[in-house]
Amino acid sequence: MTETFVVVGGDAAGMSAASKAKRDDPDLEVVVFERGQWVSYGACGLPYYVKGEIQSLESLVSVTPEEFREERDIDLRTGHDVVDIDPDDGTVTADADSGSTVQSYDHLLIATGASAVVPPIDGTDREGVYTLGSMSDGKELREYVARARDGESLQQPDRGPACRYLEECNGPVAVVGGGYIGIEMAEALAANEFEVTLFQRSDRVLKGFSGPTSEAVADHLREQGVDLRLEAEVREVTGGPSVDAVVTEEDRVPVEMALLGTGVRPRTALAADAGIELGETGAIETDAFRETNVSDVYAAGDCAEATHVVTGDPAYVPLALTANRHGRAVGQTVTGTPTEGGDIAGTAAVKAFDIEAARTGVLDHDTARDAGFDPLTETVTAKSRAGYYPEGGTVTITLSADRESGRVLGASLVSEYGEGAVHRSHAIVAALQEGATVSDLENYDLAYAPPFNSTWDPVLVAAKVLAGSLE
Amino acid sequence: MTETFVVVGGDAAGMSAASKAKRDDPDLEVVVFERGQWVSYGACGLPYYVKGEIQSLESLVSVTPEEFREERDIDLRTGHDVVDIDPDDGTVTADADSGSTVQSYDHLLIATGASAVVPPIDGTDREGVYTLGSMSDGKELREYVARARDGESLQQPDRGPACRYLEECNGPVAVVGGGYIGIEMAEALAANEFEVTLFQRSDRVLKGFSGPTSEAVADHLREQGVDLRLEAEVREVTGGPSVDAVVTEEDRVPVEMALLGTGVRPRTALAADAGIELGETGAIETDAFRETNVSDVYAAGDCAEATHVVTGDPAYVPLALTANRHGRAVGQTVTGTPTEGGDIAGTAAVKAFDIEAARTGVLDHDTARDAGFDPLTETVTAKSRAGYYPEGGTVTITLSADRESGRVLGASLVSEYGEGAVHRSHAIVAALQEGATVSDLENYDLAYAPPFNSTWDPVLVAAKVLAGSLE
Repeated sequence: MTETFVVVGGDAAGMSAASKAKRDDPDLEVVVFERGQWVSYGACGLPYYVKGEIQSLESLVSVTPEEFREERDIDLRTGHDVVDIDPDDGTVTADADSGSTVQSYDHLLIATGASAVVPPIDGTDREGVYTLGSMSDGKELREYVARARDGESLQQPDRGPACRYLEECNGPVAVVGGGYIGIEMAEALAANEFEVTLFQRSDRVLKGFSGPTSEAVADHLREQGVDLRLEAEVREVTGGPSVDAVVTEEDRVPVEMALLGTGVRPRTALAADAGIELGETGAIETDAFRETNVSDVYAAGDCAEATHVVTGDPAYVPLALTANRHGRAVGQTVTGTPTEGGDIAGTAAVKAFDIEAARTGVLDHDTARDAGFDPLTETVTAKSRAGYYPEGGTVTITLSADRESGRVLGASLVSEYGEGAVHRSHAIVAALQEGATVSDLENYDLAYAPPFNSTWDPVLVAAKVLAGSLE
Repeated sequence: MTETFVVVGGDAAGMSAASKAKRDDPDLEVVVFERGQWVSYGACGLPYYVKGEIQSLESLVSVTPEEFREERDIDLRTGHDVVDIDPDDGTVTADADSGSTVQSYDHLLIATGASAVVPPIDGTDREGVYTLGSMSDGKELREYVARARDGESLQQPDRGPACRYLEECNGPVAVVGGGYIGIEMAEALAANEFEVTLFQRSDRVLKGFSGPTSEAVADHLREQGVDLRLEAEVREVTGGPSVDAVVTEEDRVPVEMALLGTGVRPRTALAADAGIELGETGAIETDAFRETNVSDVYAAGDCAEATHVVTGDPAYVPLALTANRHGRAVGQTVTGTPTEGGDIAGTAAVKAFDIEAARTGVLDHDTARDAGFDPLTETVTAKSRAGYYPEGGTVTITLSADRESGRVLGASLVSEYGEGAVHRSHAIVAALQEGATVSDLENYDLAYAPPFNSTWDPVLVAAKVLAGSLE
């Protein structure tokens, strides 16, 4: 008898699972319920769409609903909101405009993703307050930017620092949150001639990166004209129907738009209601095969936990690659090839105007100690190419290792855009995942030629310095 | 009593050893004999000096002789040619203009480097025939290029393909050899408006890279106007006192200069005469600590073998990083901290006009089989950045693994310059050196953001495809 694989959620994890399952077992019936109209889209591209570097929202879609249906033979039902999972009956209930459907499953994947956190700030329901979690968020923001560029900006502000060299400047806007989204959106807005104030609650941007990386990014944001306010917790967004200012304990900054980039949280209500256990991170707990506590019910992507390769503990790091990889693994598992999707290293990358940064592993010493390590960290700055080569800049690498074993624990890298901080992080990710020591890393026979690095690549320099300190 | 560490040869391996030894044991007497006047120079930068991107030969020197002497307290004797090693007496004999010196040693490092191979071709002693092995070679070539640019070119050739868009074109020149040096010099000469014919004996350039990499580079060389001749073995360089043509079996190509980039061989005569054993590669054989068969006599850098991490066999891969690393390790060993310099992976990188390429490990199937593997190779081409991102190109990766164990054996990568083939190779080097499988590599949690890659970095795509083929 034909088995049925049901997927709840049609983005990275869900469509990866559906596609892989159908490819590996064409006889399997694969049904995907997606609440919205968009599937398999690159949300990571939204800031570049808002910025105007990407012209159409459709180009963020890697495979269209029609292609899934016609070429991949997947029963994709957009506009279907799954409202109930009944593990005892092996069914899900989905509501659509056309009515309610009860669908039975043999295997179920919950891939409900995450939603943008709206922080507990007064006034976030005012017009002009945005988040950037979905395609429709992106569309709205792009329309806002386009309106402002067309001179329909509500206010005519004084020209601020981002506009120093520009003839025209759009209104002052606020970005709340100094993580990836906040920084990418600061770039997108500044590029559209908005005067950007970025409010960050803590004392540095990109908290998951190292201090030196955060400082380099903060300095660069300021050089680019962003009014960066650290330790500035937003209390209220004031205004009438529309926002007119962002208020912190110390300041009131007039703005005509506020973007909230204050993180995401896993969408778990549907799973929790069905008796599926959440982990200590608040996301859905799974085993190495992404199976939940309920047999034949899997969870993957931004709604689920994963195991951190350094700590060995569950971690919640909602990023695209993990969603794709774990979704794909579930697709293999349900078609008879049990596949672990692999651990995560908490790796992330960001472009901030003209610099780039990456981080991986465990950098925070408390976290490292909790996992049983005795961390030591060094930061080095080295030339990105041969010193005599006409192009080039510097790469600053923070590298952390365990004093006793020498095991590499984490790294944070920052360089000018194009000088390789991000691609260089790959070697350190590999070292982390292989449980390599700093001495192992120091001895990697990395490629060298003057246009690409010095004889000792900055990664090797960092390892050499840290190995010396560990002696 | 003060010990003496004597180093023969003042380039990467020698000066790394001398510097590290003196730093770790300031009481050690460190004597370096260097035949020429230049020490510690970046020979890898010479093509860019000839090209004109680097203005002074001195800028290739990382530490000057004066700095070694005054700041590092190293007894550096340039212009001293070591003509004899007597291991029984523990002495070396060096000839200089000022006379002959006999110097006793407690530890000796042979770091005599490699010399450019002059192939057995008639007429290579004619004026206008160059190699590029030394600083003085670089100086001569730069002077040649400068003279030609100033209109003193010996002949006034027809304007060839490299000059299509140029007002002026320099004479036709030949590059013999399609390895790194040949390709880098083709770029350097074409950039100076020479009409370049590149002769390669075998059927592809960059033989140590994969076929697809060689093809991509060959296509690009031709696009850039280089007249690339494959399977074109040079028989003779004709002319009077000066070269006037390069002759192969099939052709006679008029040129006014010929650069021989036909590889290097280790300088081993001094060692061999002293009874130091050479390995099967023809370079000096050492143990993991770079010690030769003679106690307290070490060899490192371009004159010595190293162990290949994939095959476990001795290999001769004369490159800068190995020389630096093994020299440094000897410096530590002779000062009481026995240090293995690490195995090599045969990693190399090259820029060829507007593309970049890297290779690592074992790609040749015969070599892999000889080492006990059953190799399988796949080549994939993937976008270098998110498909919707406005910048970007492609990366083509050839990846090889053992069918039975899945172990990664080697890789070759090529992309447009700046699209990350070289830095991406770092992750594969790490995998090789850790003995990782293709599945391990496929599961690396590599950094992702749209300006840097697709969700699945091309390295992961290659691993995924190869893992699929291994199933």
